[in-house]
Amino acid sequence: MIRILLAEDQAVIRGALTALLGLEPDLEVVAAVESGAAAVASAAVELPDVAVLDIDMPGELDGLEAAARIGARVPSCRTLMLTGHGKPAHLKRALAARVGGFMLKTAPPEELAEAIRDVAAGKRVLDPSLAVTAWDLADNPLTPREADVLRLVADGLDAPDIAARLHLTAGTVRNYLTAIVTKLNARNRTDAVRLATEAGWI
Amino acid sequence: MIRILLAEDQAVIRGALTALLGLEPDLEVVAAVESGAAAVASAAVELPDVAVLDIDMPGELDGLEAAARIGARVPSCRTLMLTGHGKPAHLKRALAARVGGFMLKTAPPEELAEAIRDVAAGKRVLDPSLAVTAWDLADNPLTPREADVLRLVADGLDAPDIAARLHLTAGTVRNYLTAIVTKLNARNRTDAVRLATEAGWI
Repeated sequence: MIRILLAEDQAVIRGALTALLGLEPDLEVVAAVESGAAAVASAAVELPDVAVLDIDMPGELDGLEAAARIGARVPSCRTLMLTGHGKPAHLKRALAARVGGFMLKTAPPEELAEAIRDVAAGKRVLDPSLAVTAWDLADNPLTPREADVLRLVADGLDAPDIAARLHLTAGTVRNYLTAIVTKLNARNRTDAVRLATEAGWI
Repeated sequence: MIRILLAEDQAVIRGALTALLGLEPDLEVVAAVESGAAAVASAAVELPDVAVLDIDMPGELDGLEAAARIGARVPSCRTLMLTGHGKPAHLKRALAARVGGFMLKTAPPEELAEAIRDVAAGKRVLDPSLAVTAWDLADNPLTPREADVLRLVADGLDAPDIAARLHLTAGTVRNYLTAIVTKLNARNRTDAVRLATEAGWI
């Protein structure tokens, strides 16, 4: 029996998913909570096999932050993200949080049950409709340092501020920025921020 | 009408694909060749909209090399890779060659036709069954420099050789190697080469 913790803020969806998963003979929803913080607390008590977490939950912890904390505190519990959309930035954060899977709410119920079984077995699962998004993510042309610099541009810092923050000279930062704009085939820094954000690279 | 160049070394598959695509009212196979070199030559003459290229073809140019050359010489021609398996290394090379799409031969015929239409329209297409492979590829923890170093280890070079090749000190190379082994959670350098090769990161 695979023991499931479900976190979803919308009560109707939470109820529907609980009922749906309960129809599977090998799946059991041992807890159904409404926030990321409740999921972290519940995981520590229930020690579920798989935590199925909605990404967009209100409160201090969204689903991805909850996944990262559950991974750190309850290593035996694997995590499956469930979301309404596959934004590249979410997929990137899910990678960084080392989640076991990432499924869209548009997936057929039997695919969700199968994804839970795969994640419980230690496999990695990604919604097939996100194949191209994942491919684009893999196409990141920026070095980690260039991504750091561009992230600070996105935060509104100018070259001297970025230089101070990263302990570089302003000239070095400007060289990075020129390289970034060229690599991304962008019109300017602002355009580079837009392109890299859309692609999930920063 | 979408004009297609097909390159596939196995005559039976080449014939079957030509017949199959010919059934679609908006697709026309204008050339069907048996090698990468023939595909490059034919693309320059026929100026097709889409080149559908098998990856594993004998001869000097495999499908991915042919795709890169067609992309450089006939910019109006988009490329769709067709292969029997989705090795991470192939997917990575396909990204680097900036191909328009990557489909498995196991895909249903109607999905292949749809993929050709999407690629012709400038979209990117990836076989849904390769979603997890693409995700793993996006998870590359190595910096470009670390990947360079590890690729040379895979080529059989030791630290002093790598240092000479990359104009570094042997100590710096050894620091890179320690970082790589740690990042990949590998047992040793050989294990790191195996892990990174399987994941398509080098």
